[in-house]
Amino acid sequence: MFKLVVVRHGESIWNQENRFTGWKDVELSAKGMNEATLAGRSLARAGFEFDEAYTSVLKRAILTLEIILKEMDLLWIPVTKDWRLNERHYGALQGLNKAETAALHGEEQVKIWRRSYNTPPPMMNLTDSGHPMFDKKYKNIDPKVLPSGEALSDTVKRFLPLWNHEMALKIKKGRKILISAHGNSIRALIQHLEGLTPEQIMEVNVPTGIPLVYELDNDLKVLSKNYLGDPDVIKAAMEHVASQGKRK
Amino acid sequence: MFKLVVVRHGESIWNQENRFTGWKDVELSAKGMNEATLAGRSLARAGFEFDEAYTSVLKRAILTLEIILKEMDLLWIPVTKDWRLNERHYGALQGLNKAETAALHGEEQVKIWRRSYNTPPPMMNLTDSGHPMFDKKYKNIDPKVLPSGEALSDTVKRFLPLWNHEMALKIKKGRKILISAHGNSIRALIQHLEGLTPEQIMEVNVPTGIPLVYELDNDLKVLSKNYLGDPDVIKAAMEHVASQGKRK
Repeated sequence: MFKLVVVRHGESIWNQENRFTGWKDVELSAKGMNEATLAGRSLARAGFEFDEAYTSVLKRAILTLEIILKEMDLLWIPVTKDWRLNERHYGALQGLNKAETAALHGEEQVKIWRRSYNTPPPMMNLTDSGHPMFDKKYKNIDPKVLPSGEALSDTVKRFLPLWNHEMALKIKKGRKILISAHGNSIRALIQHLEGLTPEQIMEVNVPTGIPLVYELDNDLKVLSKNYLGDPDVIKAAMEHVASQGKRK
Repeated sequence: MFKLVVVRHGESIWNQENRFTGWKDVELSAKGMNEATLAGRSLARAGFEFDEAYTSVLKRAILTLEIILKEMDLLWIPVTKDWRLNERHYGALQGLNKAETAALHGEEQVKIWRRSYNTPPPMMNLTDSGHPMFDKKYKNIDPKVLPSGEALSDTVKRFLPLWNHEMALKIKKGRKILISAHGNSIRALIQHLEGLTPEQIMEVNVPTGIPLVYELDNDLKVLSKNYLGDPDVIKAAMEHVASQGKRK
């Protein structure tokens, strides 16, 4: 039996402001750092060990991972930073306040953009200086695969090769892996592991800063799934995430 | 022309207590974190960019690197953590207060142990629970190459393969590399780059938290060497390091 642990980064300064973040590389908030500290402590207390870790190339996930590894006294393990674990790219919506967008386009449209499996957001202009093509983080990535905006289905498509050709092979060799990532790249993983339909994965809300522990069999089928922590805290965190698309 | 930047980790809690640290994995002090922050800011201000970074597997060097990368907004670059960048292993002296050791063995003997190129310290017992063989950090390293104590010559010997087979090749390909390491693993690098004799390298004191910038030609011969920062601060930092073996 294998174990895999996944953590959604703690709150960022844009989560706080209720803005579409996507690939915008914003800081963790003080609350987010605290969430990461607590996640690290609960993993240490529960006796978890990891051989290596993965994160996106966005600092809110990287810092969450570093705080967790510091708390677990595992700063020395190898860390792979891969853009395919990035949040879903929110295209031209990036930077907009979610409540403002809801007032402008209607709450239903926002919910579709946030939750539809196949409907991408309005695309970012290719001349936009915020486009990934102009970001040094992605200078070694083929520009043709860099998104201007993604539906969840696009996020799944770019995540799966990382899973199939790298992570899954390592887990089957017994490597204990910790992943620090984002709401929608974690959804991509959850959908794949649990075999969920597009409709089902749209209803899954991953709370921030709470370790999600999978037990997997030899074929990486899910044997059990648990969030590590106080059930009431977890429930409140999930409801908080689910409420974010609502007009304020 | 190539550039290489090397930083000795900021002050640790054992530097503060004037104890032989070696491979003992102690925390950065508050002062050490501050030194790392200032190093990161001075590198950012001077316009440095890096493609990747190296550090040891000891947390004082890893945290120094993470703080620098955070300040430079370069958290996303790949980081390699390699035990061959570890501090010189101080054998049975690890944990002893340097002033106490000087009172016990004489200042000259301590100076020989700290500064002699070829004289190793008293070896750590192979049954000592603090031996690297029993540390999970080194579980994938051949136990035959793990030291029980090192002279500087031994540190040089284990560092050079990392330099020759990995770092030097990358630098020659134009990769801009930042190294966060320790007083004696940095001495190993300095001796190799500058072609110093054992006597000469013994007299080199690397200040903590001050970026050392090398400009190198196509054959990695040194064109220039500069510490980045205020000359008076650098001089004081070097003198502080040189004074540490003295009896108090």
